[in-house]
Amino acid sequence: MDKRNVVDIPAQSGMAVRVRAGQIISLVDVEGEQVADVFACSAARRDEWLSAGHTRTRTRRLFPRVGDAFYTRFYRPILTFVDDTSPGAHDMLYPSCEPAMYRRMGADENHPNCRDNFMRAAKAVDWAPEVIPDPVNFFQNTPVNAAGELEVKTALSKPGDLVTLRAEMDLVFVATACAQDLAPINGARCTGLRLEIGGPGDLGAIGGGHE
Amino acid sequence: MDKRNVVDIPAQSGMAVRVRAGQIISLVDVEGEQVADVFACSAARRDEWLSAGHTRTRTRRLFPRVGDAFYTRFYRPILTFVDDTSPGAHDMLYPSCEPAMYRRMGADENHPNCRDNFMRAAKAVDWAPEVIPDPVNFFQNTPVNAAGELEVKTALSKPGDLVTLRAEMDLVFVATACAQDLAPINGARCTGLRLEIGGPGDLGAIGGGHE
Repeated sequence: MDKRNVVDIPAQSGMAVRVRAGQIISLVDVEGEQVADVFACSAARRDEWLSAGHTRTRTRRLFPRVGDAFYTRFYRPILTFVDDTSPGAHDMLYPSCEPAMYRRMGADENHPNCRDNFMRAAKAVDWAPEVIPDPVNFFQNTPVNAAGELEVKTALSKPGDLVTLRAEMDLVFVATACAQDLAPINGARCTGLRLEIGGPGDLGAIGGGHE
Repeated sequence: MDKRNVVDIPAQSGMAVRVRAGQIISLVDVEGEQVADVFACSAARRDEWLSAGHTRTRTRRLFPRVGDAFYTRFYRPILTFVDDTSPGAHDMLYPSCEPAMYRRMGADENHPNCRDNFMRAAKAVDWAPEVIPDPVNFFQNTPVNAAGELEVKTALSKPGDLVTLRAEMDLVFVATACAQDLAPINGARCTGLRLEIGGPGDLGAIGGGHE
């Protein structure tokens, strides 16, 4: 067995970890049908974060695919998508769920949400952007049809499906287990995620937000 | 003739104007094939800006279309797309061109760019976000094919083609004439744009950046 650092992310919460260049991050959908909002920034400068828009510009693709890198807003590769055991549906078009969205859907504005969970988890590792970056939404099944319309469907991932990423620089990695329970994207109920970080060097898992 | 406030935006530069709720903004591609990066924020609070991601979430569309609103990052409508005399190709997927992009393309990092032109024009009306928002790129012809790949093509707009927007709140409007001359999106050369603002109330045009 390899020495892996395992971080459990409970349902409707977020966690941050520090990862060294070359380390491998596996993000596991433990119970299936659960979307993960993923964020990352350089350990050297917190204002260099993974940008979905800059990634689209470099990869010329709407959605990420194994072999692609994810790029920072300074166009440097920060993560590479090295493996995917899920059916492959992931999103880079939607912002994280947040109080204004839940208010619009008729829910209490204190509904658990990925924006607050991100902010809390990121702050614990000294990352406090003024505005939340657009996430990569792994396992999110919101395809685009031929008319250019975005469809909202339940995640296709089965229990234990995982995506694997390689760190291309020393970085801070944040994942939130999407809190959306008013639309069907997370299946019948919101569940948790698991991070497994392996490879060279040791790693400190940093406590994050928990709604 | 109606009383219109006309603002010329020279090639590879940007301008900001204050617009009142209910006023109509026409954005004219004067010579054709010229992309316009458009930004807007609430006059009441500069941190409430038009968000391409939130607009996609509300309209469930990749690209804007007449009849759609554009939404702020707090999910409030800020502009409505009321008319379009162009062939209808517009983009909401690409960030503005910026020094890191031109550096990557082998150009001088002092190449004119929409990020700096936006920052300069916005600053003149007291809008100074830490990070440039993702723009709406009117006339930009970067369609998505069936494989989910982004294609880069020359703008389809003819001389004099225009899009018309209605202000849904008092707002600051910024447009930059895209400075990209290393890829074919603006045709053979970068040209200028013109803003015409009409409707109730008077309007002060504010000087902006000029590369």
